[in-house]
Amino acid sequence: MLDLYSVGMERGLLYETIVTTRNPDGTPNAAPIGVICKEAHEVVVYLHQGSRTFDNVRREKRFCVNILRDPMIFVEATIGNLDPAKFQTPGQDFSIKGAEAFFSVEVTSEKLVQREDHMGTSTLNVVRARVQDVIKNQEHVNPLNRAIYGIIEALVYLSRIDIVSEDERKSYLEKLSETSRVVNKVGSEDHKKAMKKILEFLEK
Amino acid sequence: MLDLYSVGMERGLLYETIVTTRNPDGTPNAAPIGVICKEAHEVVVYLHQGSRTFDNVRREKRFCVNILRDPMIFVEATIGNLDPAKFQTPGQDFSIKGAEAFFSVEVTSEKLVQREDHMGTSTLNVVRARVQDVIKNQEHVNPLNRAIYGIIEALVYLSRIDIVSEDERKSYLEKLSETSRVVNKVGSEDHKKAMKKILEFLEK
Repeated sequence: MLDLYSVGMERGLLYETIVTTRNPDGTPNAAPIGVICKEAHEVVVYLHQGSRTFDNVRREKRFCVNILRDPMIFVEATIGNLDPAKFQTPGQDFSIKGAEAFFSVEVTSEKLVQREDHMGTSTLNVVRARVQDVIKNQEHVNPLNRAIYGIIEALVYLSRIDIVSEDERKSYLEKLSETSRVVNKVGSEDHKKAMKKILEFLEK
Repeated sequence: MLDLYSVGMERGLLYETIVTTRNPDGTPNAAPIGVICKEAHEVVVYLHQGSRTFDNVRREKRFCVNILRDPMIFVEATIGNLDPAKFQTPGQDFSIKGAEAFFSVEVTSEKLVQREDHMGTSTLNVVRARVQDVIKNQEHVNPLNRAIYGIIEALVYLSRIDIVSEDERKSYLEKLSETSRVVNKVGSEDHKKAMKKILEFLEK
């Protein structure tokens, strides 16, 4: 049986995917969701209360993870009007037609947690789920991980920081700090080490 | 003979690569450079006056483009201390050991242009170059293109814009405008269409 490593995922990294679920009325839903590869057959996702995905996963205890890079599908899934013709139901679950790969998962544990930030308090469901069939539509699958892009963005800031005004410098340092947060959230040890090196270089 | 399409590049897109050149003293230089795939065997790069790459390409009329994703190599090439042991010279040119692929190019035209922005005036060399040997170190090569990451970043801003304060909203719109600029610079028609859809959605 294929596992997550067969679709290019690495343990501990977070990938940008489209999660498909079933609505109460039987129609499909799609949303962009970050999926953490925990083990060869285990993922973790953080779902926000108030979203359809949150409700559908609470109820159905299963969902499907689609790996793809089509920009319009990410946009339409986010603004909530992905054409129903873009879905298929090869088995029990909806998936996205033309995805590089997709896999169904079954929820093994859920934990509701409160998160407080400057925008207020929100409720998250921390969901662990076990991977079932992995379906590959192409031999080499490239799941989307943002870490290397964060590094490249940070290097753009780094290379400009000496030539910008004092005000811009402050804004660049804020952007770098946000980029560093993303890289540490989604990246591998190598990405984290590279980001650390950038911040150390800046301090000099 | 292998061409740029064989390493996953698409016509018109800009890829983040490491360009390696020879310094006047014969030592190798490496720098992160955006490379535009113009045709199967043609690239365009914009080189900034004041950089070693600018000088080396003016003098040698050739350089090597390395496709890789190792974050530490991007960092060390940017801050200017990439270990000499990371280079190899399989032929006439330096390249990076362990790159997914690399190819030498020969300059076919150069055009010095002045660019003015809020940071002042700078000189760029717009270099067209013809691709020679393409060396692949793995079957499937994934050159780094930032467009889909710009789209995902824009979607993160989009999904938060209704819940943030007025001040943050302004900063989000500025970030979106910068992200849109990047996507339009590096992306395909599909990426540009997706970004347009995001901006249209925001206007509603």
